[in-house]
Amino acid sequence: MSEIKHILVTNDDGVFAPGLLALAQEMRKIAEVVIMAPDRNWSGSGHVKTLDRPLRVKEVVLADGTSALASDGAPSDCVALALLGFFDEKIDLVVSGINPMANLGHDVTYSGTVTAAMEAMIWDIPGIAFSLGTNDTQREPLDYSAAACIARQIAEKTTQHNFQPGMLLNVNIPYLPIEQIKGTRITRQGLRVYRDRLDRRVDPRGRAYFWIGGDAPTGIPEEGTDVGAVAAGYVSINPLQLDLTMYSAIPTIGDWDWERPAASQPTDMQK
Amino acid sequence: MSEIKHILVTNDDGVFAPGLLALAQEMRKIAEVVIMAPDRNWSGSGHVKTLDRPLRVKEVVLADGTSALASDGAPSDCVALALLGFFDEKIDLVVSGINPMANLGHDVTYSGTVTAAMEAMIWDIPGIAFSLGTNDTQREPLDYSAAACIARQIAEKTTQHNFQPGMLLNVNIPYLPIEQIKGTRITRQGLRVYRDRLDRRVDPRGRAYFWIGGDAPTGIPEEGTDVGAVAAGYVSINPLQLDLTMYSAIPTIGDWDWERPAASQPTDMQK
Repeated sequence: MSEIKHILVTNDDGVFAPGLLALAQEMRKIAEVVIMAPDRNWSGSGHVKTLDRPLRVKEVVLADGTSALASDGAPSDCVALALLGFFDEKIDLVVSGINPMANLGHDVTYSGTVTAAMEAMIWDIPGIAFSLGTNDTQREPLDYSAAACIARQIAEKTTQHNFQPGMLLNVNIPYLPIEQIKGTRITRQGLRVYRDRLDRRVDPRGRAYFWIGGDAPTGIPEEGTDVGAVAAGYVSINPLQLDLTMYSAIPTIGDWDWERPAASQPTDMQK
Repeated sequence: MSEIKHILVTNDDGVFAPGLLALAQEMRKIAEVVIMAPDRNWSGSGHVKTLDRPLRVKEVVLADGTSALASDGAPSDCVALALLGFFDEKIDLVVSGINPMANLGHDVTYSGTVTAAMEAMIWDIPGIAFSLGTNDTQREPLDYSAAACIARQIAEKTTQHNFQPGMLLNVNIPYLPIEQIKGTRITRQGLRVYRDRLDRRVDPRGRAYFWIGGDAPTGIPEEGTDVGAVAAGYVSINPLQLDLTMYSAIPTIGDWDWERPAASQPTDMQK
């Protein structure tokens, strides 16, 4: 990839999240940074394109005194706004995070952090999602310094090598002091084990409501996967694409004896 | 797959959408149907897991006098509620739609219709998303009868064959009378061409707001793809998986000269 002049920083926890500030401060060491992030938490929000309402953008001041933009859209909306021309500057790289919880395995389609990087890919800009590989016993305040430093090193690598079109990177960084991180693994997407349970409750007026409850997800720490790498103390870099085709199933389903669709009764569709 | 006794019908346009009713009526011909769908339109909402607020569920009556459940969650939340035990019945198949607009190519991660089927896969239940392969010149009221009939035929196929774990189906049906549909193609995910533009406006109080505007997406109608099949008058069945790994990139990025991450300055992280 050619030189990175302008980096867009976003996240899914909201513009005031400490993980975003840590990421932005490190990215400023290698390029000009612009920030456009949601004005609230959008965790678990998925890949959103807001078409049925307009979006607002306001300027805010972060804890280090720098200014940032906050939008009332989702993380992917923030990226779309930025890449469709909100800024005068041409954005060369989109970084998202640092998310305080791991985004591993099947988390990627739910994750606002990762779907922000997906949106960058849609507009042909390199996108990298960064998350701490915490487990559910670790809560804010978290120390993002090691992860932010590693995020900068990874962003710098993308300037030195070919970031191929159609790719985004999903990076998970073990929650360890940097000298205890064993290295970097380029991984495949592993398997999450979700442990959600339906939690039915009754409100003070006697009406039922439902939490998606249960325990935090675990994962299968298989060798070669994102889950396995983080569990073993390595930074996981999982290259992703948005072609979800299960190629192995195409011939199998092709054998399902497909005749031409037939009407059970004549239709009178108006063309 | 073994016998289908109970089918969950959902969608992303809201429980009162005509496409849902058409789909539910056809599915009733082959199994017991339960309906849990959003109480409003969630198009373009992505794969959502609502964890920060509880969900409400209410009973509604559809235009044909049958009853359905409406939730204030996203399509994928509706599926999660149902599969985590809201119903006494064990759900054997989840169908989503019929969406009034095509979900092709990169639409799949944005699409509430498709992400509902993704959620079924997460919980190891076969999921099928159905969309009309309309173009943007066609608007409601639309005739869903041919598509619903084809959806039933496809659902029946899944009872006769092995619906492999980890798979979901994204089905797009040309908006044609059934006798003009040429047949069925098992496809790979094609390429959408998004034509979004930033549309800046000023409200009556002089403040700026932003639409994600522009023209409806087109696609590259390549042979073998979903886009190509629908353009040629075929039903497209695109098998999808949630492993998004770009496997071809793993060795390439592995060659990016990864040394152990190094701190630019000592960190004092508390473990």
